[in-house]
Amino acid sequence: MDEHLLIQKYFSNIGSAFLAEHNVEVSIGDDAAVISSHKNHDLVNSLDTSIEGVHFLKTMSASDIAYRSCVVALSDLAASGAHPAWYSLALTLPDANEAWISDFSKGLSKFSDDYRIPLIGGDTTKGTLSITVQVMGTVEAGKSVLRSNAKEDQLILVSGEIGRAYLGLKELTNNTILNKENIDSYLCPKARIDLGIELNGLASAIIDISDGLLQDLNLICISSEVGADVYLERIPTPVSDKTIEIINSGDDYELCFTADKSYLDKILMIGKELNIPITQIGTTNSSRELVLYNESNEKLDFNSGYQHF
Amino acid sequence: MDEHLLIQKYFSNIGSAFLAEHNVEVSIGDDAAVISSHKNHDLVNSLDTSIEGVHFLKTMSASDIAYRSCVVALSDLAASGAHPAWYSLALTLPDANEAWISDFSKGLSKFSDDYRIPLIGGDTTKGTLSITVQVMGTVEAGKSVLRSNAKEDQLILVSGEIGRAYLGLKELTNNTILNKENIDSYLCPKARIDLGIELNGLASAIIDISDGLLQDLNLICISSEVGADVYLERIPTPVSDKTIEIINSGDDYELCFTADKSYLDKILMIGKELNIPITQIGTTNSSRELVLYNESNEKLDFNSGYQHF
Repeated sequence: MDEHLLIQKYFSNIGSAFLAEHNVEVSIGDDAAVISSHKNHDLVNSLDTSIEGVHFLKTMSASDIAYRSCVVALSDLAASGAHPAWYSLALTLPDANEAWISDFSKGLSKFSDDYRIPLIGGDTTKGTLSITVQVMGTVEAGKSVLRSNAKEDQLILVSGEIGRAYLGLKELTNNTILNKENIDSYLCPKARIDLGIELNGLASAIIDISDGLLQDLNLICISSEVGADVYLERIPTPVSDKTIEIINSGDDYELCFTADKSYLDKILMIGKELNIPITQIGTTNSSRELVLYNESNEKLDFNSGYQHF
Repeated sequence: MDEHLLIQKYFSNIGSAFLAEHNVEVSIGDDAAVISSHKNHDLVNSLDTSIEGVHFLKTMSASDIAYRSCVVALSDLAASGAHPAWYSLALTLPDANEAWISDFSKGLSKFSDDYRIPLIGGDTTKGTLSITVQVMGTVEAGKSVLRSNAKEDQLILVSGEIGRAYLGLKELTNNTILNKENIDSYLCPKARIDLGIELNGLASAIIDISDGLLQDLNLICISSEVGADVYLERIPTPVSDKTIEIINSGDDYELCFTADKSYLDKILMIGKELNIPITQIGTTNSSRELVLYNESNEKLDFNSGYQHF
């Protein structure tokens, strides 16, 4: 099928109900999308590629692949404390299988509806299946939450449970007993957008846990030039046997963040309001080293999480 | 090599000299890039994927691959009459070959320097070589040039020469006599940014010729609900034998645009000032059909240009 017909048929109206509220003047169908600028707001931009066999399973439905690829990209806006505004999509496909594309577009629609943002443009090409999603958000001028702003002697907290997506992925690939909650964590992760927005002004640094809790927290440490003491037993996991593999395999898209101790009550209240568990797992310090402790306060060696190459 | 080290080493400073003038507050190294908004300006966004064997040759240098992939994306901003502001990059690589990545980053730097825009973020993943470039530009509020605004009885014009990139690609793949100008047109195309900016306010519709002159012009016709008469002999080509294959194979990244007749002198003057040939190749009409004529004013059949699937 002709690329332009394909786009028109399946992609031209995804999330179009949300175009006006995000100032999108020109959407899919022209050379480029046009957005009128938001006064007193900064723009927050991120781009993420999902590849078959690396970021999603070949056996997943097209709808789940679409949804997951979009959430993975959006998660970076959560980690910036930003409001999502719109997204665009570069889709590479081995062939123009209409049934697959139709199902894929359903995943996009669900994503658009869940986060109330429109798809405003993109590109389709022929090749190995690959999905690159660009997301744009807004944040009050000067208020985006960075990785580089954590201070010494602050709390280190995480949202949700760590390792559920890893367990889900393992169950899917080994075809062992399937736990719906684990499977859903992998197939249809949530971007913690509402939490990111609420943490804006409270958290000193936020990162989303895509590559593994310790590896991602270490990026905060490096950027902020602080160290961290983290206690394995405190890390919230869906199973009682807390292994380093479970906490450090990535794919969770929960938020790991630092905050001043004085904000703890406020932050826990936000978690209650949003119905998202929030757990303190350690504290920052001046050492510039990330150290993981077991119950006996012994240092544990750990690998460095997901390696991209 | 670790993804984060890789990014830091090769990509963290590309075009960084241009960050400030484009209001980029946070660039590569955080979850997302942050840009303060431009008052009284619209944002213009586009995304393009380049794939080995489809959009570039396996035999090309990494530097040329990088440069070409970026220009291909930027060309959509030229067709919107926009000023480029910044770009981000999703790079999928089969392995982390440092020499290749280093050469690739040189192509990015050349692109950043040529168009004076910074690379502000992106993602690297492992897989079949694929490059997705997102470009963002700005245009005075309400002034972006669309495809949908061509009117009946207007001039149809093109910039540059059509078919040079096709000839260059043919020479490269057939290993026949190599003409440097043809080869360069394919390897290092130019995005007609300056021309697009100058045409803003004069051209009623613009498209960049990526898939073939007739196919792309036809997109203007469809969007604008007009027809077009185009004269093959008038189309500027680097060879005297004007075949449909030469004019309709794409890859030129020249601009095809429509304009009111009263603007012709102004437009030709702009071409002279920018040293870009501009040629009138036909006129629009009310027929809603694109017709190509030969020297004897006979209608010619033509294929529909590059097919993506």
